[in-house]
Amino acid sequence: MILLFEGDVMNINEIIRKKRDQYELSKEEISFFVSEYSNGNIPDYQMASLLMAIYLNGMSEDEIYNLTIEMAKSGEIIDLSKIEGIKVDKHSTGGIGDKVTLVVLPLVASLGVPIAKMSGRGLGYTQGTIDKLEAINGFRTNLDFNEFISNINDIGISIMGQSEKVAIADKKIYALRDATETVESIPLIASSIMSKKIAAGADKILLEVTFGSGAFMASEERAKLLGEIMVNIGNKVGKETVAVITNMNQPLGRFCGNALEVKEAIDILKGNGEEDVMTVCTWIAAHMLRLAGKGDNIANNIKLIQNQIKNREGLRKLKQLIALQGGDVNVIEYPELLDTASIKLEVPATHRGYVSSINTQEIGNAVVKLGGGRLKKDDEIDKSVGIEVCKKIGDFVEAGETIIIVHANEERKAKSVVGMIQDAYEYSDKEVERYREIVDII
Amino acid sequence: MILLFEGDVMNINEIIRKKRDQYELSKEEISFFVSEYSNGNIPDYQMASLLMAIYLNGMSEDEIYNLTIEMAKSGEIIDLSKIEGIKVDKHSTGGIGDKVTLVVLPLVASLGVPIAKMSGRGLGYTQGTIDKLEAINGFRTNLDFNEFISNINDIGISIMGQSEKVAIADKKIYALRDATETVESIPLIASSIMSKKIAAGADKILLEVTFGSGAFMASEERAKLLGEIMVNIGNKVGKETVAVITNMNQPLGRFCGNALEVKEAIDILKGNGEEDVMTVCTWIAAHMLRLAGKGDNIANNIKLIQNQIKNREGLRKLKQLIALQGGDVNVIEYPELLDTASIKLEVPATHRGYVSSINTQEIGNAVVKLGGGRLKKDDEIDKSVGIEVCKKIGDFVEAGETIIIVHANEERKAKSVVGMIQDAYEYSDKEVERYREIVDII
Repeated sequence: MILLFEGDVMNINEIIRKKRDQYELSKEEISFFVSEYSNGNIPDYQMASLLMAIYLNGMSEDEIYNLTIEMAKSGEIIDLSKIEGIKVDKHSTGGIGDKVTLVVLPLVASLGVPIAKMSGRGLGYTQGTIDKLEAINGFRTNLDFNEFISNINDIGISIMGQSEKVAIADKKIYALRDATETVESIPLIASSIMSKKIAAGADKILLEVTFGSGAFMASEERAKLLGEIMVNIGNKVGKETVAVITNMNQPLGRFCGNALEVKEAIDILKGNGEEDVMTVCTWIAAHMLRLAGKGDNIANNIKLIQNQIKNREGLRKLKQLIALQGGDVNVIEYPELLDTASIKLEVPATHRGYVSSINTQEIGNAVVKLGGGRLKKDDEIDKSVGIEVCKKIGDFVEAGETIIIVHANEERKAKSVVGMIQDAYEYSDKEVERYREIVDII
Repeated sequence: MILLFEGDVMNINEIIRKKRDQYELSKEEISFFVSEYSNGNIPDYQMASLLMAIYLNGMSEDEIYNLTIEMAKSGEIIDLSKIEGIKVDKHSTGGIGDKVTLVVLPLVASLGVPIAKMSGRGLGYTQGTIDKLEAINGFRTNLDFNEFISNINDIGISIMGQSEKVAIADKKIYALRDATETVESIPLIASSIMSKKIAAGADKILLEVTFGSGAFMASEERAKLLGEIMVNIGNKVGKETVAVITNMNQPLGRFCGNALEVKEAIDILKGNGEEDVMTVCTWIAAHMLRLAGKGDNIANNIKLIQNQIKNREGLRKLKQLIALQGGDVNVIEYPELLDTASIKLEVPATHRGYVSSINTQEIGNAVVKLGGGRLKKDDEIDKSVGIEVCKKIGDFVEAGETIIIVHANEERKAKSVVGMIQDAYEYSDKEVERYREIVDII
């Protein structure tokens, strides 16, 4: 009901109507709905209607910027001033088998870049860094902020769970987006990520923006657009930001699953990583070095990083991190100390030919189905289970040859994912080109 | 979060996603969300998101039909079989000064068409028939169903408040649409109206579909589209339906306000109505007669109706209705017995010229501001206040000449609407064509 004489008092109905009718919302209107929703003065159903209008009608860059700033302001802004040096944060929009953070942060820290990383848990088909680290026996992620700062000043790196007090509006809006099918919206994704990064207090930001069948962004084009928007926001608030656009049309590296990915990260830091994940890790680490003022030549930075792998300085830094946060450092030498699944079930290829595509989200879903991921926020997860990817795009397979090994603890669950994994693979008679993992740097 | 392995269990997220992505919803999906929302198994925020997706992406005729049927089935279906003859229902999509129902029903009933009318209250800038009738001292609208039926069998007409048990899903969805800015959607309006009309049990349906600055449909084109869709739904369920498309770019007749409109309706039934409202009433009544099988020639039917005004049979029928439902029948002879406002404030024209447009919704809003309408469902209303329209589109006025007389009980309130009324009028130097009230019959 439109009641024009309500005058100039701002109200949520007028804001919904404007967005519904494709008008641009002002800074004041965005500030109003973010703060009033955080305070509980706007009910979920009105916010849900606004979110769908934003999803379908989009937002201008100004609107996205204002939404980001207002969400950042809705919670605590972390003060990292007690840490010396240029703090570089890293974020990934999520992927299957994406253990890049576990590899890159120790490497970069080993070269004197202070790493103050607050990280999230996994939900749905992607796993989170915090869950992975907790696969290491004893590793504590629930740190007190003072301990976090003192660890960084001590060894140059700490990783803790995300504060509940950061970007409070984003937390509330994110939960609602999940329920209302308004997740895959560039304005909402960009503002959600950047509000948390701005509130997290680092000086510079490295974004890994994924696209493909295992990512929120289906196309390279949309990933680039998302990257550009986030880079502009970061730069506008004075935090130099770089986006690395990466292809997630197949799992990254060999393993998907919490303990399995920690094991693989350790292998990578020992120099035994598969080529695709190695490439992504060294490029991202090289760009983080540049942001931290450690050298503008990316090729040189890549060599620096490769050297930190060769001389095991990255591995040593990870060991220091594990030790200081209470984890069992023996996993570095003996990765078999990590929880291991009791069943290994080989999944055979249904066709002969070159692997031409992998529905990567389905691989993530298989991990969830095995118990290695969460459907709901409070679900318990089994850290030991996961997927080992034996054949990737471009590989030639005979029918019956193993494409994937399922690591599971229950035979019933292991068998239940075989069909979905086989369905996720497509084959071609003709040779298929392998793709580049990193497609652009913004 | 898309979890494909959830399999084929129907869920609201998938339904939201389909509508968001412009797919057509199946009958089963529509049945699912209507019944689960009615039962409280789908939260308001998910429904809100779906409603905005429907608002922005629309619905096919099949979807609208299925939504209508499912909403009708969500509550009681009224059984009017104890009333002999062809029952014709009448509905208006709402307008300012629209007292057509009060005039037409007694006229049609006076020619032997049984009238079993369940009507609503006003909300926002439009007033409802039930509120208007209750402006008559003693008039009861809260009838028991048996009394309703027996009244109709007795005098051929009864009007009662809408049953709370009819189209329960629509009631819940309507309240949510109001809060989520999803009211002005053709699929949602069509299904809301037709679900109630189908559940109300009449054999035939006459729809008055309004457009213009005082109606939900802004344009003639959209009103026709809405009319066509509703007529198709009605005919498809075997209830012959006619839509009369009427122009609501200015208030209909002379008065807006509850008691003032009852007074005007009595005047019209005495033959003293203004031409515009007279035309609309006779045309609608003539089409209702045709639907009731009282003659297919509309020109003849119009003459029949004009005759029922001339011989005061319509007025006598209204008097019988008032008497049987406990109202003071003396209002027929002495309309001044109706509540009358104490203040009459003349609003002067700000310009010299021909009235070229009237923001009719603002006239409705002025009535609300005077206390004559509701902002919230439970607001008390002052039946005596309202607006008397002295100058309409095409009329020539001198600056300072009275365009409207405000009927109010508080000087402060009377003065508070002067500016908005003056702003609602626009003038032209050149002569302005008067428009047709009825633009189409579908």
